[in-house]
Amino acid sequence: MKELSWTDPEIRNELARLKQMKPFCYGLTNYIAANLSANVLLAVGAGPAIGTAMDWPSAFGGHAHAVWINAASLMSCGPDEIRLAAKSAHEGGVPWVLDPVAVGAGAVEYDAVVRSLLEFKPTAIRGNASELIALAGGDGGGQGVETTMTSDQAVPFLAKVAGEIGTIAAVSGAVDYITDGTTTYAVGGGDVRLTQVTGAGCSLGALMAGMLANAEDPIMAVVAAHAVYAEAANRAKSAIGTGNFAVAFLDQLSLMDPSEA
Amino acid sequence: MKELSWTDPEIRNELARLKQMKPFCYGLTNYIAANLSANVLLAVGAGPAIGTAMDWPSAFGGHAHAVWINAASLMSCGPDEIRLAAKSAHEGGVPWVLDPVAVGAGAVEYDAVVRSLLEFKPTAIRGNASELIALAGGDGGGQGVETTMTSDQAVPFLAKVAGEIGTIAAVSGAVDYITDGTTTYAVGGGDVRLTQVTGAGCSLGALMAGMLANAEDPIMAVVAAHAVYAEAANRAKSAIGTGNFAVAFLDQLSLMDPSEA
Amino acid sequence: MKELSWTDPEIRNELARLKQMKPFCYGLTNYIAANLSANVLLAVGAGPAIGTAMDWPSAFGGHAHAVWINAASLMSCGPDEIRLAAKSAHEGGVPWVLDPVAVGAGAVEYDAVVRSLLEFKPTAIRGNASELIALAGGDGGGQGVETTMTSDQAVPFLAKVAGEIGTIAAVSGAVDYITDGTTTYAVGGGDVRLTQVTGAGCSLGALMAGMLANAEDPIMAVVAAHAVYAEAANRAKSAIGTGNFAVAFLDQLSLMDPSEA
Repeated sequence: MKELSWTDPEIRNELARLKQMKPFCYGLTNYIAANLSANVLLAVGAGPAIGTAMDWPSAFGGHAHAVWINAASLMSCGPDEIRLAAKSAHEGGVPWVLDPVAVGAGAVEYDAVVRSLLEFKPTAIRGNASELIALAGGDGGGQGVETTMTSDQAVPFLAKVAGEIGTIAAVSGAVDYITDGTTTYAVGGGDVRLTQVTGAGCSLGALMAGMLANAEDPIMAVVAAHAVYAEAANRAKSAIGTGNFAVAFLDQLSLMDPSEA
Repeated sequence: MKELSWTDPEIRNELARLKQMKPFCYGLTNYIAANLSANVLLAVGAGPAIGTAMDWPSAFGGHAHAVWINAASLMSCGPDEIRLAAKSAHEGGVPWVLDPVAVGAGAVEYDAVVRSLLEFKPTAIRGNASELIALAGGDGGGQGVETTMTSDQAVPFLAKVAGEIGTIAAVSGAVDYITDGTTTYAVGGGDVRLTQVTGAGCSLGALMAGMLANAEDPIMAVVAAHAVYAEAANRAKSAIGTGNFAVAFLDQLSLMDPSEA
Repeated sequence: MKELSWTDPEIRNELARLKQMKPFCYGLTNYIAANLSANVLLAVGAGPAIGTAMDWPSAFGGHAHAVWINAASLMSCGPDEIRLAAKSAHEGGVPWVLDPVAVGAGAVEYDAVVRSLLEFKPTAIRGNASELIALAGGDGGGQGVETTMTSDQAVPFLAKVAGEIGTIAAVSGAVDYITDGTTTYAVGGGDVRLTQVTGAGCSLGALMAGMLANAEDPIMAVVAAHAVYAEAANRAKSAIGTGNFAVAFLDQLSLMDPSEA
């Protein structure tokens, strides 16, 4: 397992490429996280569009530079629309990220729709420990959108998800882990208050899409999204309270400079 | 009528219990207030999930520690889903809060759905003066989601709502009043800028659910939600402008310590 | 072409009238921008209600003081609801603003719904350069909700939109332009970070509705919305990063005093 962080040049290179490309990223996400997800992408120079309005899932899903799909977008769209966006991305050769929010938390019809999206071969999957464990067929013990497990506990399941689905699997926690089933990376740092800012995990899925838009090495793009997120949280540590932390996190993200010494 | 505030130990005890339990709270709310509502619950240590995605209303509504339903969630779900969530909470013995946003403001089909939820016996109902007066059969004069009446004017109607429905009724205003039809509590303080932060009232409904999750004395839990809210607003008073006030309010909420002297 | 800014008394007069009237503004908008849009209106003293819940589109659309419709609200409502709100405003003599987000970006079914709203004679239309050019029948080159053109490039198309539709047309950019087809106004200033705060453009549509609620001279109301927005952004310039900029912008908007020397 290899540890990477913002101090490593390969991480900065990924952010530099994103900033140069300014990719158009299309997302389906839940309305709790939509605002933060868009602001995270805007902070690093990407151009986000979010939501399913008439034929947006096919028109934007198939033509964006990258797509992210947060399954809880089902709270404002139907299964056909979410599947159409995934299908359009897949058939259009557009890299896309799946965030299976709350999978395994007891909603069986919801879970079935989430699993049906795997047919469209997500480039990467991200979630918390309970979600990744559930996706691998384990008992994740998820409570709504919250995890009851640690990211360390999810590591063996992560490899299974990556191997069986043929994707890059990433779990967020005190330490984040990212694997393609062969190589596994660890990203430390961050701040526990990220878990007290609603939608912070969902918005990491958006940043992953931005990083994957034009990636030479997709797993490094996913690792970079996690490392950039962790570093922005580190730099926001002096904020007092969860309100200012969220604002400072976004500030720091917008100020991150890949060329800094 | 008894006045209570953060300085009273019974209020702090309620917050202490919430912080110890870290309840899973499921909410149906409108997408304007969803982000703040989740952040309010996260700030005090609860774990929120929001929205209707496939079978979430039954799966989460019947198994959460507490539920809150903001009727304006009808802007992204149908009447069947909102009724199913209320029914699931009621039948599962889960305490639940109803926020009848904009009832009595002229939308008769909407109002009918709101009233149909009373069948499922909400543990508590909260709103502004116009809404509570309308719910009691008076002319509330509501203008969209805004009140044109004072909380003082709503007090007689509040008792009627509590008595006829068999619930705890709470009205927000310059002074907040909470009654079960027999005993009435008043909570002062706060800051008028809370009315200039969209969703602040709706998010109080979420905090009420958190407080009710494991309450020994439900009315005290509801009073505590109001008193904690008012104190956090007091502590945010030095903020300049409505933007920073919202951030500082959330900060102060996250920093409130039930054990402080 | 006439340049106007906050220093001109006619601009301050428009804000003064809005603040005195405290209009009830009803909006259909997307859930990414809904929170900021409501907070922008609350910051200047208006009372917003947002969304389509049961019969809100007819009940509120026909009886509000002003209405704004952001076409991307189609991500949580259907074409019938958005058309009903526009029809209700039109038939009720309520001034209303159309924001044709992402029109011309490749979603043909979506675009058709947007164009169908022109039947209900919007009082004003606002958007970015790509959107206004597309609306005039040009090749706007829009990428999702982002523009690939400058506001200068949109000026000739702006006059065509205003003339053919019989509306006030406004384009946002480095310089904003507003025209009724005869007279054109320019508003400079602002801060490029407004384009990095999601929903800032959408929320300008909400402020336009507030200004139009009781306007003696509608084009001046629209110009004033742009000039007030630009001045609030100017005053927020010292903010570091995009997170604090958004907060400071809202603060400055809430602190703007039409009577200042």
